[in-house]
Amino acid sequence: QASQLVANLHAADAAAILDELESDELYEVFARLNLEHGADVLIELDTDSQVELAETLTSDQLSDLLEQMEPDDAADVLVELEPAHIAATLAAMDPEDSDDVRQLMAHDEESAGGLMTSHVVTLRDRLSTQQAIDLLRGLQPEDESVYYLYVVDANDALVGVVSLRSLVMAPAQTQLSDIMDRNVITASVATDQEECARLLARYDLLALPVVDAQRRIVGAVTADDIIDVIAEEATEDMYLLANLPQDEDVEDSLFRSSRRRLFWLFVNLPTAILAAWVVSNFDGTVEKVTALVPFMPIIAGMGGNAGIQTLTLIVRSIALGEVATGQGFRALGREVGIGAINGVAFGSAIGLLGWLWQGKPMLGVVAGCAMLLNLVSAAIAGTVVPLTLKLFRVDPALASGVIVTTVTDVTGYSCLLGLATILIRYLI
Amino acid sequence: QASQLVANLHAADAAAILDELESDELYEVFARLNLEHGADVLIELDTDSQVELAETLTSDQLSDLLEQMEPDDAADVLVELEPAHIAATLAAMDPEDSDDVRQLMAHDEESAGGLMTSHVVTLRDRLSTQQAIDLLRGLQPEDESVYYLYVVDANDALVGVVSLRSLVMAPAQTQLSDIMDRNVITASVATDQEECARLLARYDLLALPVVDAQRRIVGAVTADDIIDVIAEEATEDMYLLANLPQDEDVEDSLFRSSRRRLFWLFVNLPTAILAAWVVSNFDGTVEKVTALVPFMPIIAGMGGNAGIQTLTLIVRSIALGEVATGQGFRALGREVGIGAINGVAFGSAIGLLGWLWQGKPMLGVVAGCAMLLNLVSAAIAGTVVPLTLKLFRVDPALASGVIVTTVTDVTGYSCLLGLATILIRYLI
Ligand SMILES: [Mg+2]
Ligand SMILES: [Mg+2]
Ligand SMILES: [Mg+2]
Ligand SMILES: [Mg+2]
Ligand SMILES: [Mg+2]
Ligand SMILES: [Mg+2]
Ligand SMILES: [Mg+2]
Ligand SMILES: [Mg+2]
Ligand SMILES: [Mg+2]
Ligand SMILES: [Mg+2]
Ligand SMILES: [Mg+2]
Ligand SMILES: [Mg+2]
Ligand SMILES: [Mg+2]
Repeated sequence: QASQLVANLHAADAAAILDELESDELYEVFARLNLEHGADVLIELDTDSQVELAETLTSDQLSDLLEQMEPDDAADVLVELEPAHIAATLAAMDPEDSDDVRQLMAHDEESAGGLMTSHVVTLRDRLSTQQAIDLLRGLQPEDESVYYLYVVDANDALVGVVSLRSLVMAPAQTQLSDIMDRNVITASVATDQEECARLLARYDLLALPVVDAQRRIVGAVTADDIIDVIAEEATEDMYLLANLPQDEDVEDSLFRSSRRRLFWLFVNLPTAILAAWVVSNFDGTVEKVTALVPFMPIIAGMGGNAGIQTLTLIVRSIALGEVATGQGFRALGREVGIGAINGVAFGSAIGLLGWLWQGKPMLGVVAGCAMLLNLVSAAIAGTVVPLTLKLFRVDPALASGVIVTTVTDVTGYSCLLGLATILIRYLI
Repeated sequence: QASQLVANLHAADAAAILDELESDELYEVFARLNLEHGADVLIELDTDSQVELAETLTSDQLSDLLEQMEPDDAADVLVELEPAHIAATLAAMDPEDSDDVRQLMAHDEESAGGLMTSHVVTLRDRLSTQQAIDLLRGLQPEDESVYYLYVVDANDALVGVVSLRSLVMAPAQTQLSDIMDRNVITASVATDQEECARLLARYDLLALPVVDAQRRIVGAVTADDIIDVIAEEATEDMYLLANLPQDEDVEDSLFRSSRRRLFWLFVNLPTAILAAWVVSNFDGTVEKVTALVPFMPIIAGMGGNAGIQTLTLIVRSIALGEVATGQGFRALGREVGIGAINGVAFGSAIGLLGWLWQGKPMLGVVAGCAMLLNLVSAAIAGTVVPLTLKLFRVDPALASGVIVTTVTDVTGYSCLLGLATILIRYLI
């Protein structure tokens, strides 16, 4: 009855149920699905279940399933398996299908080549709309990318795009070259998936054609896959900003998660120890003016918050393509400006607090100045760290948070305790 | 020459240039675009420029532009304007168009009703594919949502969906009811935009039909608009986690940004002061054992980091639909487990450090226990805060970060300094 239920569900819903099953149950329910539905479900399983299931299947069974898929989905399933299983499965597939899949597997998973399907319909520019429709009926393409038909010249070079809508709506004898849009937005196989996502979103496309150096079509990236990329890249950036391991999932086992998260917490440890070491250098001052201690969390905390504000804004702006290289100085100026304004406002507030609470005006001056300096350093670190990482082609979100809060901790404690040390005679 | 250049660009690129111009220049360049391109560019402008431009245009000019747009885009432009301008513009529009737009404007902007276009093609189930295609050619629909054709029965109730692809590929005399997919995923006007995005992503759709209580189609949400929703909602969550104002933009003016960010920093201030107050209560202990002070940033910092790790994981899982209500206890158990394991590991490390560095074993015990307790409280706060906010239908990311770090600061300082106060005789 479980199999019956799963057989009637949409592949995505069936996969969500199968994801919860253990290896042998999983195989048993899956084995009763028909080939076409099985292929759809296999694509939608999470990577763990996918690998588990694919390893239980023989190369013959697996190759039959993969032949039902778009080549990009087949490549995504195969790429997770052992080399021997991959080779045997590819050998068992129809050579035409396996060639497509093999080529797609060669590309970086996070590039247009790794995302694209090679099933793309191209039509010669001299065809009439009726000829094009007849040709399509002969091909019976199953894939979604058929909503855009790419028009090529005699050298197979891309010259335009015709939507299936305009093809159907146009009079039968119109030539494709008369109704095609000549401004085709394209990617190359090496184009990063984030750039693909930006292009698709900016130009409201359903698919993005991928061309080689001669502008011959080698594939197309479709909107459904880009939607997943947009969500994944946002998750990646959020996790990086929070120092969470990349593929952490609420479904992961406790020990696996602890071990991996512990690593990221350990990355923070040198930072925390550096801050502790800075503080310990001012032991004498702290001993004489214990009233300074309650200001430590305020100044370090506000600096950390302001630094993370700036960092998040810059990381997200880079991801959305809003800060181009070269605009870095403008962004820096802006953030330092905000940091200085907020530093004066906050520094005054904290200074007043220090004065009124402890009855020592100089304590207010020390705390206020430390706050101002720390908010400015937060602005600088929050801008410079991600832009520098980007300049060196490292992911701008990677470990940025740790570096920024290290800067604000060290600056905050040094300024507060350093100024207090200099002005100690007014504080005791 | 600027106008010439802009006229030849894709609307999105033209809009990016116009966004940089001042009000009068903006109007001058825009006025030279033809009506159709002008309408496309107006849609793509950022909200500031859109409003500026729309206010310069007469109601007649604006109504001509809006008539060129999909009704959802027209509604998005209008909704930003003064009530008088809105009324005059709607009055100047073709009544059929203005009715559509007026109805769409009534819906919450972040719901399916606020996102959908009312231009949807519906076909009777008894039509043949050839009749359907002839009908489409008569209608000449311009909108993108035409890739899915919705099939209705005699009562206008939705009974299936036929893709334009399968319509074109099927033999001419096939009846629509024979090729339609009867499992149509639908939304209602009130469906939240994030739920729409999850449905579209999960089922790999190009559009999502919106139906009323009688299953009559009232509109459709298209993939291009959902792509923007996915990016916006991710930005919103990132900004909330970083306490950044929602619509902060690297293009905003310095003072506007400072003022708005200052507000969010002030939200943090009570927190920081609460932590400072906790610390000030242990003034006597701090004075006697200044060696405790360097451990303060370590324990508070690591607790804060661990809390933000958990919080980010939970907030993102909620947004992606991975943590359903009712699974909260499972998530809590898991996070507390990870917190305890990491707390023991980290607590031992910090305890050892305390012992070796300061030569006092009891200082190690105090610091180690404070670390363990703080990581467990970080796990609890990081899970309970967003899940509770969700339970009360508040955005789970809203102010969660402030609450979580307040909990870890207060717990961290209380445990460290409280334990030290109890065990003071072993520490001096
Ligand atoms: Mg791939
Ligand atoms: Mg990338
Ligand atoms: Mg768009
Ligand atoms: Mg759009
Ligand atoms: Mg898919
Ligand atoms: Mg695909
Ligand atoms: Mg990225
Ligand atoms: Mg990435
Ligand atoms: Mg709207
Ligand atoms: Mg999907
Ligand atoms: Mg739209
Ligand atoms: Mg949200
Ligand atoms: Mg929202």
